[in-house]
Amino acid sequence: MSALRFEILARSAATGARRGRVTTPHGAFDTPAFMPVGTKAAVKGILPDQVARTGAQVLLNNTFHLMLRPGADLIQRLGGVHGFMGWPAPILTDSGGFQVFSLSDTNRIDDEGVTFRSPVDGSTIRLTPERSIQVQNQLGPDIIMAFDDCPPGPAVAAPDDERHPFRAVPRPEAGREYLARLDQANERTVRWLERCKRAHARDDQALFGIVQGGTDLDRRRWSAERVCAVDLPGYAIGGVAVGESPDAIDTVVRATAPMLPDAKPRYLMGVGYERDILGAVLAGVDMFDCVLPTRNGRNAFAFTPTGPIRLRNQAHAEDPGAIDPGCDCQACGGGFSRAYLRHLFQAEEMLGPILVSLHNLRHFQRLMAEVRAAIDGDGWAGLAGRWPIVAPVLARAV
Amino acid sequence: MSALRFEILARSAATGARRGRVTTPHGAFDTPAFMPVGTKAAVKGILPDQVARTGAQVLLNNTFHLMLRPGADLIQRLGGVHGFMGWPAPILTDSGGFQVFSLSDTNRIDDEGVTFRSPVDGSTIRLTPERSIQVQNQLGPDIIMAFDDCPPGPAVAAPDDERHPFRAVPRPEAGREYLARLDQANERTVRWLERCKRAHARDDQALFGIVQGGTDLDRRRWSAERVCAVDLPGYAIGGVAVGESPDAIDTVVRATAPMLPDAKPRYLMGVGYERDILGAVLAGVDMFDCVLPTRNGRNAFAFTPTGPIRLRNQAHAEDPGAIDPGCDCQACGGGFSRAYLRHLFQAEEMLGPILVSLHNLRHFQRLMAEVRAAIDGDGWAGLAGRWPIVAPVLARAV
Repeated sequence: MSALRFEILARSAATGARRGRVTTPHGAFDTPAFMPVGTKAAVKGILPDQVARTGAQVLLNNTFHLMLRPGADLIQRLGGVHGFMGWPAPILTDSGGFQVFSLSDTNRIDDEGVTFRSPVDGSTIRLTPERSIQVQNQLGPDIIMAFDDCPPGPAVAAPDDERHPFRAVPRPEAGREYLARLDQANERTVRWLERCKRAHARDDQALFGIVQGGTDLDRRRWSAERVCAVDLPGYAIGGVAVGESPDAIDTVVRATAPMLPDAKPRYLMGVGYERDILGAVLAGVDMFDCVLPTRNGRNAFAFTPTGPIRLRNQAHAEDPGAIDPGCDCQACGGGFSRAYLRHLFQAEEMLGPILVSLHNLRHFQRLMAEVRAAIDGDGWAGLAGRWPIVAPVLARAV
Repeated sequence: MSALRFEILARSAATGARRGRVTTPHGAFDTPAFMPVGTKAAVKGILPDQVARTGAQVLLNNTFHLMLRPGADLIQRLGGVHGFMGWPAPILTDSGGFQVFSLSDTNRIDDEGVTFRSPVDGSTIRLTPERSIQVQNQLGPDIIMAFDDCPPGPAVAAPDDERHPFRAVPRPEAGREYLARLDQANERTVRWLERCKRAHARDDQALFGIVQGGTDLDRRRWSAERVCAVDLPGYAIGGVAVGESPDAIDTVVRATAPMLPDAKPRYLMGVGYERDILGAVLAGVDMFDCVLPTRNGRNAFAFTPTGPIRLRNQAHAEDPGAIDPGCDCQACGGGFSRAYLRHLFQAEEMLGPILVSLHNLRHFQRLMAEVRAAIDGDGWAGLAGRWPIVAPVLARAV
């Protein structure tokens, strides 16, 4: 049924981690994989050939943003997302579910779909499972995501007001209303998944289902059983990193990943920091995406194996060294000093965000390459030595 | 005395144009040359290796901006402008003269120099010929410029208020006050040039003098004679493109270029559009710089051989074609359509400014390469056929 093929090439003996390869109509990518985010059909500030040079083999586009502007019809006529943005390799689109729940301050959810006001032009837009799939069929990526009901985390839930699901209402613990909202989202997500599958009209695209359930592990199990009962080429863990603590993320991922079919790719949506990724890899997750490399890069926040540095700090004003002497990115390998990068941010030069984004993208790809290498033969101790930032996760898990 | 060598390799028989090569301690560049502008030690949004891929062999940095931030001491410690910004090829710095007269709303000119308020932190800064040369010695470029008194054009002159020389006071014609201001600037520029030469302390840097005189050709001749009487490795035409008409630019450049020594490179500062450059090349000018490729590129304004296009226009919304099908830049050669570029600007994606800047930089380098080729054998008719945007200049001059 699917054009997607997943092979597991090696397994960690000591953990749940596996190394594999996903093959799509636009080529293959190695797993565990980190997908840079090109929300609006562009990785912010980075040319496609530069993205490829960081080692990225697959990237993510955003259905919500692209359907609003420039529109799926136009992108379809211009060769789909691959041709439109000049990225010939695999692409995954999210469904827009997360965005309509998180970005819009004016949405209205019902059992059929979501109505919201376009942040581009203020028009009223209706997004349903069928419409999301139709748009993703037009956009033409290799992997498309089911349209799900993605509830906010417990700490910020305002379940009595569905129109503002991400309003920051501090709540000391997951209460009755939060659990009721999880049940509602779980049931909708399963019904919507069936509708997505029926609406899906391209057999050269792989539809992934999304497991919800918030921070409640019983509800995660209920969702995983129902979602994975729908035969699909891959499954994702959604509703994570929506305001909960790192420990809560870790607990949910470690519990949920093994509930997903072993033989299919497992994708943890929107995560995250290096520690979160490592914890998930050890639990058997294969795919990740996150805006952190570029969003933080634009703000002078550079990742390194020993922890992040903030390049606007005075401490770097005269530092002739690279962000990370062990890095081979265009910024570090190109001889650009911390002092120069700080100058670019102080002077509000675009090249600062560009260079630090390039570095951060390469940082995550270097981490993933080392993670894949560590899976063969369980080389976790070596990895922990070279990447102190993930050593605590490795020490706990291995 | 100078580390700079200039060879004239070919001459146009029909015009004053010449093809040559300037050799510096950081390598050579072919003339006529267009220098991209890296004001704050960065070509806006473009990595040095990308600048080199456009064909640029030399670029310009700005003494005024760099002395204010990050400061000449720091850049000197970090390897000079070449090492600081990662551009190993030739660099020219302007002296700061133009900026202190044009950018600051709070400057005060006297016969010794200029006092102004820093736009970075509001502090009071004094710039003199000696200080400008000292800063340029610290910055370490291959070619440095004399600190000159650069008066505004006649249409915007407010010569009775030296503190606001660029205040836009429309004047129907060059009047008595304008000519008096030109005389004052001419005399100061010559006196300051002598001081610059005395202050210059590095024999691996070539100091160029700058001819002033506004739109008055007698005063241009006076300035050229006095400035060129100071033995220097190159001379520039300054005080052009400061508010006067294209015709006035052309008249001044055609008159002034032949006044400069034939055997030394001639540099027309801050110019300009393709027609202006061609007119100057035909008059014997060898070097140009301008912010147009990047400044206009950031605003969706793309140059082509048939004239500019504005990529935000609705007309390009569904256009699958490149900006210029004859261009081999990273935007046109990379398969990025006008529709995609327009989308990037509509969506406020950094990649739009980056791609159009790359295209525009390549556009000017392609023009210069064709101009250099046309000089051998006077192939001006062929150039006019391929570059309609400059055909009127060629038709008039050849």
